[in-house]
Amino acid sequence: MTSKARSLALFPGSFDPITNGHLDIIARSLSVFDELMVAILVNPEKRPLFSVEERLGIIQEAFASEKRVRVETFSGLLVEYAARVEASVIVRGLRAISDFEYEFQMALMNRRLNPSIETVFMMPAEKYSYLSSRLVKEVFELGGSITGLVPDVVERRLAEKHGRKAAS
Amino acid sequence: MTSKARSLALFPGSFDPITNGHLDIIARSLSVFDELMVAILVNPEKRPLFSVEERLGIIQEAFASEKRVRVETFSGLLVEYAARVEASVIVRGLRAISDFEYEFQMALMNRRLNPSIETVFMMPAEKYSYLSSRLVKEVFELGGSITGLVPDVVERRLAEKHGRKAAS
Amino acid sequence: MTSKARSLALFPGSFDPITNGHLDIIARSLSVFDELMVAILVNPEKRPLFSVEERLGIIQEAFASEKRVRVETFSGLLVEYAARVEASVIVRGLRAISDFEYEFQMALMNRRLNPSIETVFMMPAEKYSYLSSRLVKEVFELGGSITGLVPDVVERRLAEKHGRKAAS
Amino acid sequence: MTSKARSLALFPGSFDPITNGHLDIIARSLSVFDELMVAILVNPEKRPLFSVEERLGIIQEAFASEKRVRVETFSGLLVEYAARVEASVIVRGLRAISDFEYEFQMALMNRRLNPSIETVFMMPAEKYSYLSSRLVKEVFELGGSITGLVPDVVERRLAEKHGRKAAS
Amino acid sequence: MTSKARSLALFPGSFDPITNGHLDIIARSLSVFDELMVAILVNPEKRPLFSVEERLGIIQEAFASEKRVRVETFSGLLVEYAARVEASVIVRGLRAISDFEYEFQMALMNRRLNPSIETVFMMPAEKYSYLSSRLVKEVFELGGSITGLVPDVVERRLAEKHGRKAAS
Amino acid sequence: MTSKARSLALFPGSFDPITNGHLDIIARSLSVFDELMVAILVNPEKRPLFSVEERLGIIQEAFASEKRVRVETFSGLLVEYAARVEASVIVRGLRAISDFEYEFQMALMNRRLNPSIETVFMMPAEKYSYLSSRLVKEVFELGGSITGLVPDVVERRLAEKHGRKAAS
Repeated sequence: MTSKARSLALFPGSFDPITNGHLDIIARSLSVFDELMVAILVNPEKRPLFSVEERLGIIQEAFASEKRVRVETFSGLLVEYAARVEASVIVRGLRAISDFEYEFQMALMNRRLNPSIETVFMMPAEKYSYLSSRLVKEVFELGGSITGLVPDVVERRLAEKHGRKAAS
Repeated sequence: MTSKARSLALFPGSFDPITNGHLDIIARSLSVFDELMVAILVNPEKRPLFSVEERLGIIQEAFASEKRVRVETFSGLLVEYAARVEASVIVRGLRAISDFEYEFQMALMNRRLNPSIETVFMMPAEKYSYLSSRLVKEVFELGGSITGLVPDVVERRLAEKHGRKAAS
Repeated sequence: MTSKARSLALFPGSFDPITNGHLDIIARSLSVFDELMVAILVNPEKRPLFSVEERLGIIQEAFASEKRVRVETFSGLLVEYAARVEASVIVRGLRAISDFEYEFQMALMNRRLNPSIETVFMMPAEKYSYLSSRLVKEVFELGGSITGLVPDVVERRLAEKHGRKAAS
Repeated sequence: MTSKARSLALFPGSFDPITNGHLDIIARSLSVFDELMVAILVNPEKRPLFSVEERLGIIQEAFASEKRVRVETFSGLLVEYAARVEASVIVRGLRAISDFEYEFQMALMNRRLNPSIETVFMMPAEKYSYLSSRLVKEVFELGGSITGLVPDVVERRLAEKHGRKAAS
Repeated sequence: MTSKARSLALFPGSFDPITNGHLDIIARSLSVFDELMVAILVNPEKRPLFSVEERLGIIQEAFASEKRVRVETFSGLLVEYAARVEASVIVRGLRAISDFEYEFQMALMNRRLNPSIETVFMMPAEKYSYLSSRLVKEVFELGGSITGLVPDVVERRLAEKHGRKAAS
Repeated sequence: MTSKARSLALFPGSFDPITNGHLDIIARSLSVFDELMVAILVNPEKRPLFSVEERLGIIQEAFASEKRVRVETFSGLLVEYAARVEASVIVRGLRAISDFEYEFQMALMNRRLNPSIETVFMMPAEKYSYLSSRLVKEVFELGGSITGLVPDVVERRLAEKHGRKAAS
């Protein structure tokens, strides 16, 4: 009996910007799957703080030394993108009840669109249970410290965008 | 770059009796992991309908032709059992909010007891979203049909226990 | 175009004892349906405070002057009882999230057992949102006032059971 | 004892567009009530995909052969519209917890504005538990199949709007 | 053993407009804390119905005779404002599950930003459990009565804004 | 303007045994209130692991050096006990949705029984969000480490009860 092919899991999101909660889920995914594709959703209807290119650059920098993590952008249906890159699993983090309902709705629709792609849910460390990209941006814009909530590269880029010094 | 060792996932539970909702999660797990260990919890404080031996027999019979599924019983801490059988992942089904909170509590405690074992959550088909072992037993005891809710072997064994004919 | 036959709705429960929250749902049901059957579940595995006969008597007394309410006891599957009395609708009160999940599970199972019987949910007045038979009994046993939470007949019967004077 | 007058239930919503989840609730309502009025909310602050007239036409077409379903548009307070058309019941579908809270808030406010109009909640088939008008539009715009999620007429009209062929 | 200094609690919000649900929480807070600061968030990204100055005026009028309530506006981080006015407690009302998750997220972030400031949650009277500023505005704009849901001064100001007579 | 009398808050519970989650809520309460009474509920219908006397001793030992914490036992209605000791506030920890519903039900009933006593809710540190007395006992009984989850005295007493060595 031989082993399955290397397993590739997709971790889709907006990542505007990526937080330590996302990093936590990525690290946990790497303990379960062989490789992880961080897939940045290109959504023309939203006005992101960071452009798609900036987000790609930030995540590539954050995982420069981790060969098992790849980063790409995608648009269109998630399950079609998953099939194209031959990922059989979608990974999503679950923090709270509100996540739960939205995530289940999306997962059930994705399953309907392509039953061969499975969604699995993972739990971030409880210290990240309240963390979201939106909240990080809000706190930063109001002058609060986000050290420890995002990777260093994000803190530096946020400081550049706002013409402010990163805490150091 | 070589692939990881064959991945073994644990699917723990009481399985008193196993339902089609459990089978659904097991089938989904097999699309994600190489092998699955169905681990029957021996809980001396509960009075099950089926003995541990009966439950072991039922599940072995249900998966007789699926080489990638193994069945064992365990007692004690789940994470210690997981470490012993070299499973790095625990699989749990999530149906509803009430599942969600209990499962998160257990997963966080298990993570604290052994951070190297990860819990992943999967969603059963929505047609099983209301199914539970307890409800199956209740309906059967009141004379309702459980065909389609449990594997045939469970329906036969329930009928034997209650001296009733299985629907056929 | 002639009208449908008189509509009969079932309101099943343990009613141990009936509370003003139940009365509220019954009154609301009577504004929607022609007749309501209060159906007391006979559950041999629970030890009720009031016997089935006492509960039947209490509810009959509470609705003595309301011709559109009938009271019966039943055992076995709810949907079989509903079919027997030719009720096409089951009414359930929804107070809170925890109700919601349990009620949905039961309603989906009942629909599976008999798809021709529909469950509808109604909301009690918000002043009864925290009320339950169990809580009424607890408060009464600890000596607290339950005036306004249950019909007078229940307060008198509780006082008789505990050899205590009803507030008056 | 004569029966109540024919019961008319209101099923209000945006229906932009109507989905098979809506159709499911409508069919269930017709098993409980004599007639159903599908009431399309005219909300000048939202930019719908389909105009009010288009939505009216779609729903009329979908129920052309069902005499017990009527379709109208309304603006202003729902309970005032309900009183005007002499509907004593508002029907709402409940899929999930998030529905639950919003629906309860609206139902309690409506009860305050007109206590003689009752809201009843019904559960769609579980296969529609993840369905919403918004999600249908998203999936369609991304090129995914919505066959089986909406009535044929909606699929055709969506295809016309997007200059795309309906699956057939 | 001497008593602590006079306790000052902060009650932050948009208050666009203040409702009787807010008044209820304020009254309850005054039974627990010595003084309460109603802190109106100045959020340049939202378009309020009432300007910050109007909201300040309304709340000052509503509490003209209550010396223990002060009203101020603030912008920036809530915990920095709290430290500046030497409030050690933030009070928030909890009505429903959806409140719960958002409030917990904010409270955990605030605790991280300043661990010396504690958030406590209080429950409004159940008759206000469905009340929100947004819903009050919606109902008023559709011509519904909001008497009993907001203080008189709010009803008058809303009527002035809409060129309509307040109910009286 | 003089300050209110010293504020006394009640923290009621079974505390079988007290956990670090309880200690966390107590510490937070002391930053808000002058004094805290830990009130151990004597419930003759439950079979606790630790007797009331043992629980009293454990908590007294845990707070030996904190003059602002008192410990007592009580039976009967919580609000009557609160009135007797002149506490105007009940403090409860909120960890999760399931807590939320139960706690709200109890708080609303307590408010009805005595409207002059207010319940406030506080949030434990997120690292204790999964902690409960029941779970601590389960883990200990299965041989797992509970160091860091309970005060030292609880770990020692649990070890004595089970004839096992405390981790040290």
